[in-house]
Amino acid sequence: MDAIDVIRAKRDGQELAPAQIDWVIDAYTRDAVAEEQMAALAMAVLLNGMTRAEVARWTDAMIRSGERMDWSALDRPTTDKHSTGGVGDKITLPLAPLVAACGAAVPQLSGRGLGHTGGTLDKLESIPGWRASLSNAEMLDVLASAGAVICAAGGGLAPADRKLYALRDVTGTVESIPLIASSIMSKKIAEGTGALVLDVKVGSGAFMKTPERARELAETMVAIGKDAGLTTVALLTAMDRPLGAAVGNAIEVAESVEVLAGGGPADVVELTVALAREMLDAAGVAGKDPADALRDGSAMDAWRTMISAQGGDPDAPLPAAAETHVITAPAAGVLTRLDAFGVGVAAWRLGAGRARKEDPVSFGAGVTCHAKPGDAVAAGQPLLTLHADDPARFERALESLDGAWEIGGDGGPAPLPLIIDRIA
Amino acid sequence: MDAIDVIRAKRDGQELAPAQIDWVIDAYTRDAVAEEQMAALAMAVLLNGMTRAEVARWTDAMIRSGERMDWSALDRPTTDKHSTGGVGDKITLPLAPLVAACGAAVPQLSGRGLGHTGGTLDKLESIPGWRASLSNAEMLDVLASAGAVICAAGGGLAPADRKLYALRDVTGTVESIPLIASSIMSKKIAEGTGALVLDVKVGSGAFMKTPERARELAETMVAIGKDAGLTTVALLTAMDRPLGAAVGNAIEVAESVEVLAGGGPADVVELTVALAREMLDAAGVAGKDPADALRDGSAMDAWRTMISAQGGDPDAPLPAAAETHVITAPAAGVLTRLDAFGVGVAAWRLGAGRARKEDPVSFGAGVTCHAKPGDAVAAGQPLLTLHADDPARFERALESLDGAWEIGGDGGPAPLPLIIDRIA
Repeated sequence: MDAIDVIRAKRDGQELAPAQIDWVIDAYTRDAVAEEQMAALAMAVLLNGMTRAEVARWTDAMIRSGERMDWSALDRPTTDKHSTGGVGDKITLPLAPLVAACGAAVPQLSGRGLGHTGGTLDKLESIPGWRASLSNAEMLDVLASAGAVICAAGGGLAPADRKLYALRDVTGTVESIPLIASSIMSKKIAEGTGALVLDVKVGSGAFMKTPERARELAETMVAIGKDAGLTTVALLTAMDRPLGAAVGNAIEVAESVEVLAGGGPADVVELTVALAREMLDAAGVAGKDPADALRDGSAMDAWRTMISAQGGDPDAPLPAAAETHVITAPAAGVLTRLDAFGVGVAAWRLGAGRARKEDPVSFGAGVTCHAKPGDAVAAGQPLLTLHADDPARFERALESLDGAWEIGGDGGPAPLPLIIDRIA
Repeated sequence: MDAIDVIRAKRDGQELAPAQIDWVIDAYTRDAVAEEQMAALAMAVLLNGMTRAEVARWTDAMIRSGERMDWSALDRPTTDKHSTGGVGDKITLPLAPLVAACGAAVPQLSGRGLGHTGGTLDKLESIPGWRASLSNAEMLDVLASAGAVICAAGGGLAPADRKLYALRDVTGTVESIPLIASSIMSKKIAEGTGALVLDVKVGSGAFMKTPERARELAETMVAIGKDAGLTTVALLTAMDRPLGAAVGNAIEVAESVEVLAGGGPADVVELTVALAREMLDAAGVAGKDPADALRDGSAMDAWRTMISAQGGDPDAPLPAAAETHVITAPAAGVLTRLDAFGVGVAAWRLGAGRARKEDPVSFGAGVTCHAKPGDAVAAGQPLLTLHADDPARFERALESLDGAWEIGGDGGPAPLPLIIDRIA
């Protein structure tokens, strides 16, 4: 087999044979297919697409490029959630212990933030002592004791995807649904979860700006899951405005703890409970209602156990930013718009995110949203609080918020429903 | 400017701005755009095309990546020919001195063979003493004394094209008409010729298998020439069967010398004279008919001067292969087909060509065609003579000739006319 033959076949609109896909992914992992060859193939895939059979095989080949984790030693079924990323999307934090409290195990391998969307590991690292890197044996210990673990993926998982992901980033080949879907699914299937719920975000703060593209991605991922024998369900959810009030790291942990204590913003609670029900249902676990587990303290118990098991102190005070800047409502009215992308970029510029993957993040930085679209506001009322370690960061953050919110006389255009659709 | 923005623009079907093209070609030449980025861009160009304005600018940017030669010190106009490559295509050898004998100067930078098509420099190197590598000053000296020079392109000419050509070869992005056309034209324009005639080959032995694709390539190149202010004309010519009788290196030199002596195969003479007329016409040189210059010995004189000026001995015996194998006609009839590709591959396998660019070639190896399509043959008459240094090479060469020729009761399907069309 030869890289040029595979590239030409996809370039000329042919369906790649399983043997061609297996060969090219394996050879690329071994550096026997050059980066420039894979770049040309990725562009041909982006422009000419892949069939369902091709995407399934491509995903499988990426899984087989590395190890596949195995949780069969646990006494309960595993289930996981993946979000395509959004602004204020801390859902994994309350969700994983909540599902654990309801009887399933959650082996969540998570990532770091890049650009305007945050990363679950960055948020959790604001908890003093908490460690993201665990060995497989440590993961199994935490899962067995707490029912949930959230940690960084090791280098042995889908190494083909790791190489390809970095290549796509510099070659204009990120925006391909077959490549996005196979990248996400290869990691989640290699992670060894028994069931998977996908939270596909839609709107300005999401990777997919329109419900149509989000639906296509969701359908592609659900098909990959099905073809791999993994029960997979997707929800399309709103990311036109931030999720909850907190957008940052430590402030999102604090909001997650509020939810686990039975409080917290309504949208975060609603989405957390909806995803928990899907995860339990996909795993075939019945008997306990997640809403009850938030009320009765069992989800909080699982959280404390999970954080402690990874070295974190659940009672330690969280880092706070040294400086704040408050934006107030210039007039009374209704907040008709609060743009997720603008708020995400502001939080990023305040220090909550990173521009390059080797940059550090500020744990205390971020944005607190005091009102959400549809809320009535009084003149002079705080709308947004900006948090930063260095007040020099406020200027550029404020620029990104310019035009990102609007106060009108009435409700304005309806925001997207929180849960737009369900694809199974 | 950023490589990813340029890739995305072409990926999304936009026309690249002149500044984007200038930047990406310059940055690629300086290694500031990575090979994998250029590979993705090349695939996007192949699949989404380029407008006439984009191709013109792309070509111009590649020319500006290096030096542009200048022949204004000569006392006569320059004109050149480029062939897209074929089997038995030795036309440059008699053509350059013929045009010189008629009053124009021919500064031909030529290449080596790769795969089943031969290379002009490989053929000429079979002449004892002849040197392909000349400095610019030496080129000018040979041009001034002989009126024609055929030599290797130096490293300073269109270095962006040299990098991109090597990249396209390994990334399945060779078959793009805008990329092929800009590659050829950037080298020819940088070479500094004042007029250009393109011989675009059509058929099994050519890169373009159909007249439609060949016409598209010819029209693209003629447009580039026009946009660059270079008088450019293209002929579409037949490459369904070999050109002339000899396919190899030394045997093609010998056939070229026959033509210069006023003899030689009719098709080689016809095409040489037709191309010479186009070259002289494009350069605005009138007064001498090329057919006369073949008869009166003036073309032969120019050949001898040119070969001697580059260190070659025009009277030295040419290398001959140690072994021959003759294929005879199994029955009387008409040779209805002699496939250029099959004969080209046979010559290559006999040692006349190379598989990798660092391989040596055998000067004596090749195929002599004793009959051409349409010729009547007697039973037992020699059809093809195979020449090789090593008789072990005959077996695989014979395999490639299996089914490459046919003897029928009548003329069979008409071969392509030698000169199919003219595009100006």
